[in-house]
Amino acid sequence: MTLQLTMQSSELSSEELSTLKAMRQRCAKNILLSTSLAGSGHPGGSLSTLDNLLVTYGCIKHDSKQPELEERDRVIMSIGHVSPGVYSTLAEYGYFTEEDFLTGFRRTGSGFPGHVERIVPGVEWDTGNLGQGLSTAVGLAHGFKIQKKNNQVIVFMGDGEHQKGQIVEAIRYASKYKLDNLIVVVDRNHLQICGTTEEVMPQSIRSLYSTNNWDVHYLEDGHDCNAYFQTFSRAYQKQDGVPTVIVSRTTMSKGISFMENIPKYHGSPLDRESLAKAMAELGFEDEFDKWSTLRRNPVGTKTIQQYRAPVVSVNKGEPILYEAGTMLDNRSAYGNALLGLAEANNSDNKMVVAGISCDLEGSVKMGGFHKHSPQAYMEAGIQEHHAATMAGGLSSLGLVTFFSTFGVFAVSEVYNQNRLNDFNHASVKVVATHVGLDVGEDGPTHQCVDYLGLFRNYFRSSVFMPADPNQTDRIIRFIAKEPGNVFVGMGRSKTPVITKEDGTPFFDTSYEFQAGKGDWIRKGSDATIITYGAVVPAVMEAWEILRQKGHSVAVLNMGSLLPVDREAVLTAADTGVVLTVEDHHVETGLGSIVGTILAEAGMGIRFQRSGVVQYGGSGKPAELYASQGLDGKSIATKVEGMLA
Amino acid sequence: MTLQLTMQSSELSSEELSTLKAMRQRCAKNILLSTSLAGSGHPGGSLSTLDNLLVTYGCIKHDSKQPELEERDRVIMSIGHVSPGVYSTLAEYGYFTEEDFLTGFRRTGSGFPGHVERIVPGVEWDTGNLGQGLSTAVGLAHGFKIQKKNNQVIVFMGDGEHQKGQIVEAIRYASKYKLDNLIVVVDRNHLQICGTTEEVMPQSIRSLYSTNNWDVHYLEDGHDCNAYFQTFSRAYQKQDGVPTVIVSRTTMSKGISFMENIPKYHGSPLDRESLAKAMAELGFEDEFDKWSTLRRNPVGTKTIQQYRAPVVSVNKGEPILYEAGTMLDNRSAYGNALLGLAEANNSDNKMVVAGISCDLEGSVKMGGFHKHSPQAYMEAGIQEHHAATMAGGLSSLGLVTFFSTFGVFAVSEVYNQNRLNDFNHASVKVVATHVGLDVGEDGPTHQCVDYLGLFRNYFRSSVFMPADPNQTDRIIRFIAKEPGNVFVGMGRSKTPVITKEDGTPFFDTSYEFQAGKGDWIRKGSDATIITYGAVVPAVMEAWEILRQKGHSVAVLNMGSLLPVDREAVLTAADTGVVLTVEDHHVETGLGSIVGTILAEAGMGIRFQRSGVVQYGGSGKPAELYASQGLDGKSIATKVEGMLA
Repeated sequence: MTLQLTMQSSELSSEELSTLKAMRQRCAKNILLSTSLAGSGHPGGSLSTLDNLLVTYGCIKHDSKQPELEERDRVIMSIGHVSPGVYSTLAEYGYFTEEDFLTGFRRTGSGFPGHVERIVPGVEWDTGNLGQGLSTAVGLAHGFKIQKKNNQVIVFMGDGEHQKGQIVEAIRYASKYKLDNLIVVVDRNHLQICGTTEEVMPQSIRSLYSTNNWDVHYLEDGHDCNAYFQTFSRAYQKQDGVPTVIVSRTTMSKGISFMENIPKYHGSPLDRESLAKAMAELGFEDEFDKWSTLRRNPVGTKTIQQYRAPVVSVNKGEPILYEAGTMLDNRSAYGNALLGLAEANNSDNKMVVAGISCDLEGSVKMGGFHKHSPQAYMEAGIQEHHAATMAGGLSSLGLVTFFSTFGVFAVSEVYNQNRLNDFNHASVKVVATHVGLDVGEDGPTHQCVDYLGLFRNYFRSSVFMPADPNQTDRIIRFIAKEPGNVFVGMGRSKTPVITKEDGTPFFDTSYEFQAGKGDWIRKGSDATIITYGAVVPAVMEAWEILRQKGHSVAVLNMGSLLPVDREAVLTAADTGVVLTVEDHHVETGLGSIVGTILAEAGMGIRFQRSGVVQYGGSGKPAELYASQGLDGKSIATKVEGMLA
Repeated sequence: MTLQLTMQSSELSSEELSTLKAMRQRCAKNILLSTSLAGSGHPGGSLSTLDNLLVTYGCIKHDSKQPELEERDRVIMSIGHVSPGVYSTLAEYGYFTEEDFLTGFRRTGSGFPGHVERIVPGVEWDTGNLGQGLSTAVGLAHGFKIQKKNNQVIVFMGDGEHQKGQIVEAIRYASKYKLDNLIVVVDRNHLQICGTTEEVMPQSIRSLYSTNNWDVHYLEDGHDCNAYFQTFSRAYQKQDGVPTVIVSRTTMSKGISFMENIPKYHGSPLDRESLAKAMAELGFEDEFDKWSTLRRNPVGTKTIQQYRAPVVSVNKGEPILYEAGTMLDNRSAYGNALLGLAEANNSDNKMVVAGISCDLEGSVKMGGFHKHSPQAYMEAGIQEHHAATMAGGLSSLGLVTFFSTFGVFAVSEVYNQNRLNDFNHASVKVVATHVGLDVGEDGPTHQCVDYLGLFRNYFRSSVFMPADPNQTDRIIRFIAKEPGNVFVGMGRSKTPVITKEDGTPFFDTSYEFQAGKGDWIRKGSDATIITYGAVVPAVMEAWEILRQKGHSVAVLNMGSLLPVDREAVLTAADTGVVLTVEDHHVETGLGSIVGTILAEAGMGIRFQRSGVVQYGGSGKPAELYASQGLDGKSIATKVEGMLA
């Protein structure tokens, strides 16, 4: 039976206080032991945030026997490095044993990594990069509101961390959307690695929140469990549309006389001798040798919690067929499909599909969705860092979360936010418009030619690029049903419906999109052009030029780039001549994927790449394409050269 | 003779006011004409910020006949989209003609792109991504202080833009470093694309600055030239250690009755009919057809300004030789080299080398530099977005700017900031420590395995990866002298000095680092291992295992990855068997570079890649390497398999 505090009480009983005190002593011991045993880790912040952590878990709804209990409150550790504090607390509350933690901490293959990860029962989110935790928490809190659930979200943050700009984005957003189910606890110990927070970068944390209309509480002694309990429990129970921050004045390394307020203990464990001294202060035997011996055994893995992106039951709705001859921007096809998904799944009673944009609703064609499902549409402002991270949190609640903005803002600007979503097996549908040279006159800063080059660096995300409005429609409906993070990119301009040789739509009603499957738009025996996205029409032009000259050229469309259709590439190579064509940086896109497949297969064929070879200019898309050899004529000429 | 206002005056004369009014009318005409002619662009913000722009150029030190004048003040347009406002203003001040601008705006190959770029005479920085301009300006302002120069920096910002979190990072930094040579002008028109700033994301811009101790001025009528002049000129002349912000309440599309306060004119030009109406309001003939005809001529290029990263005269100092048998982390070798550069170049009178870090001075070994050159060392706090952008600004002043933090924060976190530096031909030396699985126990969020995968997406940056302390020393001294942006990465752990077969240091005193040149650490005829960085010692172990088994294996070290030594790769391929080995994502690093070179050369050889195939764990580096096949034994086994 673990500690359960009654939030209706006006104060903690003396019995509860002494229970908490005993828990604190054990946790302090384990924080110091675990870091000394591992020879690395972060004891200082773990000790300063410990009292607040222990009281919080005593208050909130959670069940260590059911770590995935749907009704549980969520605790997000934005300060992922205080893992020893978190693991020792979770051990006290029965999620696993002290032994599991002490024998496993920071060992290869164990379930207790250096920064908190979801493989640890009770941990809700992998963190480690500072500044993102509040946005994740905001996403969860907003998600619960959309789902009409009463779960609350508590996020622990550092004070040095508040220097990160993303935090003020999240603060504003929480205020705008009245997230009173959100409590921020700031471990205000006034120290960071290089000195005091005042020396390193002065700021007023409280005014950051108060000027954005939060409820701000300041605890002069953050280690006073009763004071924290009183503030926390009131914040937890109120429903006034105002989020709460508790700034808790703490002491780094609290409780160990010779460690207190020494910055180096942010990230350094005690040596053997100092540890013995600390153990004595805490009233424990020195257990180092005992655990050190146990850590020579093979690492335990039984506590490791598997998790994956949530599988959501989604009705794909009725696909839309755009007839041959239609000219339509893929953005509009996306907007239509998204509206279709809303109509098929969202009702006032239950929202399944959610949408986020950043001051670009019209450009990314989310207007129809917004109108249909206003409760599930989120306008995050020009705050892409926050929006991308928040999307990860939302998606983990089983909301099918579409995040749309221009490519540069959806990929290049938020690379590290999407990366953390990838770690967390989130399920964000990043649908970016205004991708590639096709952006035209807005010029190079707005021309995203690195989406594939960036997403390839994650290990778990997919990248799909539609060739026309029909494929866009199918891809959007496909990703709504598939769990996991995905990027879908499209240009700005109107583009033709791709057709079969008989003139009917290639992606017709019988077409189903499959991840990892290329589309043979044309078969041919002399050469193969492998391509995708906005330049497919130019490739079709080249195909026609080459056909008229008597060349039999195959066109392979890679709607799925991650994963890629390796078999199809090898089949293409059988023609002996392969050219890749893409509206993407030539060094980091499909060309390098195909090149590597060919090299690994040991195939010495004629292979070349066309793509973006320098930053684009500011002008009409057709001119920009021609200037980089991505127009139909240049492509045909290149293939002819390879055939010669 | 262009307008020159006297800042000592208490107010503008009526003659000056009428001159400004006439200029405004012509500029307004050209803003509307240029966007209508191009069929795209941003008239609304151009018209709202126009009055402040015109007065500013009347006040500051600048010379249109010498756009690169060293004493000039710098104007940074954080709102790069108001290019029509900027170009029309610069035309008034004689940088080029109205005709140059109107015939060239937003045409492929012209010198007048959609977002401001440095190819336009008078423009100081390419912008387009919101939120970065203030950091650039802060970098310039701090750079002038370090150089003991009196130049001032003025930055124009939008109000919607203030939602970006990076801005508050820059605000804090400017306050900490007392940058009173910095003036921010906020175009406070209360509108952004999706509605009013209050609807999209409420915030108080003035309190964002005032809580961080700036001088805050609010102009109730931002179009009142005299009021702006009085405020601006006082801010320009004061020297009190406090930066200034002028929040200028303006009206979007000011001056055209039917356009005022209509959000759509943020990004839409007038159609033909509305343009005629607007011209009439402004008292001009309708010149559309005249200019439209002129725009059918080939685009003009004579105004295009070439610029490159500054070439700085630097003394490389005396290289340090680390003897065979030495074990040293490359970080320390970096710290030693940096200190050597400071000793050889920096004096109280003149700082040449500058250093920036983000609360990690000790870990990145900048302590020695900080102690030697405190005036040129900048502690930016946990504000990497700001720091990376600021570094670009600083470097453009001819300060050799080293920016150091962990790999994840120097690359993954600030991808889009480094990208803007790449656009701007800046000269930032990003030297990142704690790169790769070598980070060990801190786990996957801290293991940067995408540095090459990310930098490859820029078009102008270099990537160098030292194999040992000697190569580190030489690379650091090399990059100090070379203009341009560069990334240098290194692990955390101690690493041996790489030796020749005779046991002496491979990178000895006769070694000179060259960009684009690989190092043949061992010659061999059966196979080649191509590698770099932290795994070179493991490759040398593999080489020894293979040697003992009678295999003649070459080892090619790629200290320079961008540019890569293509010739050396082809020479390696002559052995018929090539394996790449890297502490990097296997899909996006050296393996894919080599694979693509082989494929394009049509070489069907035996080729495989070793690298990071999944997110790393939290444990000892040696164990993490072994778990991904990157230890000596695994590498040797793999080569043997390829030879079989």
